Amino acid sequence: MDPAAWRARLAAARVATLGTLDAGGRPHLVPVCFACLDDGRIVSAVDDKPKRSTALRRLDHVRARPDVCLLAHHYEEDWAQLWWVRVDGTASVLDVAEPVMLAALATKYAAYAERPPGGPAIVVTPTRWRGWRA
Amino acid sequence: MDPAAWRARLAAARVATLGTLDAGGRPHLVPVCFACLDDGRIVSAVDDKPKRSTALRRLDHVRARPDVCLLAHHYEEDWAQLWWVRVDGTASVLDVAEPVMLAALATKYAAYAERPPGGPAIVVTPTRWRGWRA
Repeated sequence: MDPAAWRARLAAARVATLGTLDAGGRPHLVPVCFACLDDGRIVSAVDDKPKRSTALRRLDHVRARPDVCLLAHHYEEDWAQLWWVRVDGTASVLDVAEPVMLAALATKYAAYAERPPGGPAIVVTPTRWRGWRA
Repeated sequence: MDPAAWRARLAAARVATLGTLDAGGRPHLVPVCFACLDDGRIVSAVDDKPKRSTALRRLDHVRARPDVCLLAHHYEEDWAQLWWVRVDGTASVLDVAEPVMLAALATKYAAYAERPPGGPAIVVTPTRWRGWRA
């Protein structure tokens, strides 16, 4: 598949896993809702799901070590249908998401349209894309 | 939920994301099929899916930096149903999976029962469990 097709698969995925580095340099994973912006950046917001301490830890990780990895994948029992898309990138934390980010999240998720995430946002600038399918 | 309940959720999950560290110390994610063993270890095999170079890279990562993170999660549009289970652990590579590992994988996955994975195995010894649900 060409890069645009992988990007489209990622953009359509409802959830991805964000990998960051913890204070000890170990990998730390968390599932995230996210949206791909037209300019190539990928945004994930800290919303009102009851997980404050975990969310804050994730932000601390990104601030301290901006290298992140984002993976979206499809699983089913017929392994001929498997695929994944992986983005390596550098991330930053915004205290408040930009309007374009909130709009992209609200367009993708009904829950965000109803109740825009008011917390900080993690913004990933991709440096490398990889995709695989069976 | 008590720890046994989280373990049961992980054991039943059909797929998880394995986070390792690449040669530069950056997070690297890949989806894995896996099985939880009675002794607490978690095993993932390198099978015959056409992904040799990626699989080998994952093994190199684990050999060089054994800190890993494994995440299984459930997503649906009703965010009140979300949950995830995360295991931090240390991993090692076996050139050939132990019989108990092959048995656990074959019990969980029909594809492995039909065609046992012949390649190396990544074995994770958990050091910390975390679970979250909405």
